[in-house]
Amino acid sequence: MEHPLFSRQLLNFLLYDVYRVEELCRHDYYGQHDRDTFEFTIDAATEIADQQLRPFFRDIEQPEPELCDGQVQVPPPVADFVRTFAESGLMASTFPLELDGQQLPKIIYAAVKYISMSANNSFVMYTDLSIGCANLILAYGTTEQQQRFIPNLLNGRWLGTMCLTEPQAGSSLSDIKATARPNPDGTYSLRGQKIFISAGDHDASENIIHLLLARIEGAPEGTKGISLFIVPKYKLSDQETPNDVQSVSIYHKMGQKATPAMHLAFGETGDCTAYLLGAPHKGLPQMFQMMNSSRLGVGLNGISIASAAYQTALQYARERPQGRSLKTGAPVRIIEHPDVRRMLLTQKVIVEGGLAFHLQCYYYLDQLKVSRDPDEKKRYHALLELLTPVAKTYGAEEGNRSVNLGMQVLGGYGYTEDFTLEQMARDVRISSIYEGTTGIQSLALLGREVVRNNGAALAYWKEEVNATRKQASTIPEISGLAGRLQEEMDRFERTTGGLLKLAATGKTEAFLADATLYMEYFGLVNVAWQWLKMAAAALEKPADDWNASMVHAARFFYRYELGRCLHLAQILDNRDPLTMADQQPDPFV
Amino acid sequence: MEHPLFSRQLLNFLLYDVYRVEELCRHDYYGQHDRDTFEFTIDAATEIADQQLRPFFRDIEQPEPELCDGQVQVPPPVADFVRTFAESGLMASTFPLELDGQQLPKIIYAAVKYISMSANNSFVMYTDLSIGCANLILAYGTTEQQQRFIPNLLNGRWLGTMCLTEPQAGSSLSDIKATARPNPDGTYSLRGQKIFISAGDHDASENIIHLLLARIEGAPEGTKGISLFIVPKYKLSDQETPNDVQSVSIYHKMGQKATPAMHLAFGETGDCTAYLLGAPHKGLPQMFQMMNSSRLGVGLNGISIASAAYQTALQYARERPQGRSLKTGAPVRIIEHPDVRRMLLTQKVIVEGGLAFHLQCYYYLDQLKVSRDPDEKKRYHALLELLTPVAKTYGAEEGNRSVNLGMQVLGGYGYTEDFTLEQMARDVRISSIYEGTTGIQSLALLGREVVRNNGAALAYWKEEVNATRKQASTIPEISGLAGRLQEEMDRFERTTGGLLKLAATGKTEAFLADATLYMEYFGLVNVAWQWLKMAAAALEKPADDWNASMVHAARFFYRYELGRCLHLAQILDNRDPLTMADQQPDPFV
Repeated sequence: MEHPLFSRQLLNFLLYDVYRVEELCRHDYYGQHDRDTFEFTIDAATEIADQQLRPFFRDIEQPEPELCDGQVQVPPPVADFVRTFAESGLMASTFPLELDGQQLPKIIYAAVKYISMSANNSFVMYTDLSIGCANLILAYGTTEQQQRFIPNLLNGRWLGTMCLTEPQAGSSLSDIKATARPNPDGTYSLRGQKIFISAGDHDASENIIHLLLARIEGAPEGTKGISLFIVPKYKLSDQETPNDVQSVSIYHKMGQKATPAMHLAFGETGDCTAYLLGAPHKGLPQMFQMMNSSRLGVGLNGISIASAAYQTALQYARERPQGRSLKTGAPVRIIEHPDVRRMLLTQKVIVEGGLAFHLQCYYYLDQLKVSRDPDEKKRYHALLELLTPVAKTYGAEEGNRSVNLGMQVLGGYGYTEDFTLEQMARDVRISSIYEGTTGIQSLALLGREVVRNNGAALAYWKEEVNATRKQASTIPEISGLAGRLQEEMDRFERTTGGLLKLAATGKTEAFLADATLYMEYFGLVNVAWQWLKMAAAALEKPADDWNASMVHAARFFYRYELGRCLHLAQILDNRDPLTMADQQPDPFV
Repeated sequence: MEHPLFSRQLLNFLLYDVYRVEELCRHDYYGQHDRDTFEFTIDAATEIADQQLRPFFRDIEQPEPELCDGQVQVPPPVADFVRTFAESGLMASTFPLELDGQQLPKIIYAAVKYISMSANNSFVMYTDLSIGCANLILAYGTTEQQQRFIPNLLNGRWLGTMCLTEPQAGSSLSDIKATARPNPDGTYSLRGQKIFISAGDHDASENIIHLLLARIEGAPEGTKGISLFIVPKYKLSDQETPNDVQSVSIYHKMGQKATPAMHLAFGETGDCTAYLLGAPHKGLPQMFQMMNSSRLGVGLNGISIASAAYQTALQYARERPQGRSLKTGAPVRIIEHPDVRRMLLTQKVIVEGGLAFHLQCYYYLDQLKVSRDPDEKKRYHALLELLTPVAKTYGAEEGNRSVNLGMQVLGGYGYTEDFTLEQMARDVRISSIYEGTTGIQSLALLGREVVRNNGAALAYWKEEVNATRKQASTIPEISGLAGRLQEEMDRFERTTGGLLKLAATGKTEAFLADATLYMEYFGLVNVAWQWLKMAAAALEKPADDWNASMVHAARFFYRYELGRCLHLAQILDNRDPLTMADQQPDPFV
């Protein structure tokens, strides 16, 4: 049962005891599935992780992929993994049967991603971006586009990317400048530069399909003039002819070295053919669908690497003799030292609470799929919009912290290449930058999701948390934790109310000044909710050591992690901002 | 005045306005110095940093030093730097005149280190370890040993190391096993293995002088049977003959790649000559002198890298246009965004508060040197023992956090090798492991320094902080901060009192279980003290923008950083530990 990089027992507990995924099979869409097919899928992912991902995690770093003669080559194990992953059906697992998919719940695919990314996060970027592209084409493409692109994206012959960022605009998508000029045949000629394009060039597939944001000539300024395009690396008419997509340079990064991050130039010689995807000028809201899925993926990636780091540190701590017991004076393994246990417990509550939080979001995605009630759909949609940036950020920030604690458990060895921790620490660091930095996610949370529809999403969320809280308050072992969560929710509500009053006075900048701390606060409350939910589910099961350990971990989270909220609230409640640009004195004089 | 890696204005402010180093020149020992000689020294260090350190910071990483045919070669700029640093007199700057030193205050040399390490921390390891060795030989060596080793260590012909850690013992020095057998001529034959030896092998000097802990055959078990030895790489009699010190392997590390970390084997063929340094069986307390100096050095290194990261991020934020003002809608440089300002301000208060805290310790070292009053000496000694692990840990942990915030300011670019931030993040990560991990420092703080002599050190410390606090409470602009510091000190005293009661009941393991959080707590209070001291000094000067910015930063520290104390106190005040190994349930079942 015990895997060196993740806990299958935890995964099963979350899927079957906490989120009761089998209940999804009562709905027609998932009707052909049962626990057996779920387990079969997860077993297949585990096997691929063990055979095609984990063995290459270290080796793939040297030599780093380079741009040579206009082309990036990546080592063969990348293409091997993509092929196996596609052939096993995992690429298409959540797609409809009529597209040769398996119509599996997204929460099951989340488990697949978790396992895969714990083994080799760089490789999974290739498949995950392609699945995202296929999903977007499924949502907005013409029938012809769907037939042309989706099968090839899901069988791994083509791989996808998303092209948003431009050199001059960075995170500010309203400022992008890539332009598309309509051609008489209905296609577009594209021109522009995109940077930081993950898997933007490689030789692991026959073609690369870029989904790209650009302005149709004459489109309005700002976000309302942005359209979404499909831009293949090679012409669709003739897979040997380049489509005027040039690799300008490759970024060498701190980590995730097997995924080339590219600076790409489109249409430098005026011959880049692009296909409009969906409606003109609606590119940004359409792309947000892929970005939302990617954001959850990045957060889950943080948690997955943190899982590998936790299991690695745990195993090391169990085996490494060092120092003596302060009680008996006898030599001990380092797992006996309270400080090491504190670090491991912190890793555990981040990994397991963060995983639960992500699965909560995937659960909502599946509910959104099967629900027929418009009000219910509205509810799940609102919850997803609210929680997606939070899960992403929690997974990124706390995943990073968790991996670094794992390195600390190993001490000097953790800093060396003799162990995988140092690579995990380098890999996980990108999570708080990818798909919108923590600062950008936080502005989206407070400035958009919290205020949207008069705070409807937060109201739904409160109902969700209260359901857990009320149930837990009747269970003696955790009624105290339920009370603590109530306190934190009350405080959070007061803090939010104060901020909304400030927003109502038009002081938008002051309102959003500490949005990142609001994000941290909200993330902690959410994961506290998840820990209460897990503790309640564990206590519903027959008492055993594992279930008891989950209650212990919940108590640890409430004391060591949730306690940070008070400080965050105190900063957010303060109405004398210290970080505004037009204030005197200038602190950076 | 503005340097791209550190602020000379801040350094001067700390040296001349806060710590008034010119007053040291009234003492005979420093009598030949004045502000001019201090400035001359700092100018020389800056020039070397600009010419011999900073240009090689990036390049030196590739190719990484390798062990070939039993010898590690490092690139020529290492030896060039060592030579220049020695020839300029900086190596010997704090040594007595009779040893060709300059008898400069240690606080001035701290400024030299700060500047050097901000430019290239890997290179400074070589010189700093050698200075540490020379100091230890000065303190405990025979006249012959002093004459033989110190001049060569200070002219850079020889370079030093410290050899403590062994494979089976790790941080647990009581378990070391290297043994020394007495020879008839008064030397010893050494045998044993040492790991993680920084600059343990290289070709940047003619000889390498290892200071090494080992047991004389028949010595008592545990820490009381450990002696200190001088072990040269080449025989002293004949600088061409190897002294049976073999390089077993080189560790490849996440960062600090220009400093080879070695696994060394001594006496594998029975021909390793060692020289006892100081008294037999007194090796550990003697070595602690070098370790104390090294611990301050490691903490300062964290702050120095953080300084370079702060200045780099600040410059980037000033130049990088991105996004729009939430007030005016106009395009802005990212330094205008409150969230970026929050990150930069956090970096600033860590770097500047951390530097002040380290200089406080170096100030005490200088006072210890010049004081003639035994009570005063006792006081400075106690303060240093108390604060050294705290400064080390603050510089390491918060330095790491600060550098990572700098990377975050740069977003995607920060993660690439196009900027230096990613290397700084890799380099700084070692700080919380070197010279005793944060966990080990924290056990030393709470388990040894706080309880020693009935808490005498904490009592001295309280007097020191209260002097600052009382002065600040009379200054209207910062009397509120002084009040906040009083609150935190009261709370800290209550928390400490509660822990000491627990210790008195013999529950040592529970007493020390959260020592790392106690360390974090104490570090925050100390740096709050430093910020109050800086704000008071700034307000004593004629009002200008720079002085006002320091008061602003102090307010920021008190709100955004010091506020963490409450949460830490709540955990430490809890008497129901969750991290003890013998508790049920086992959280790692």
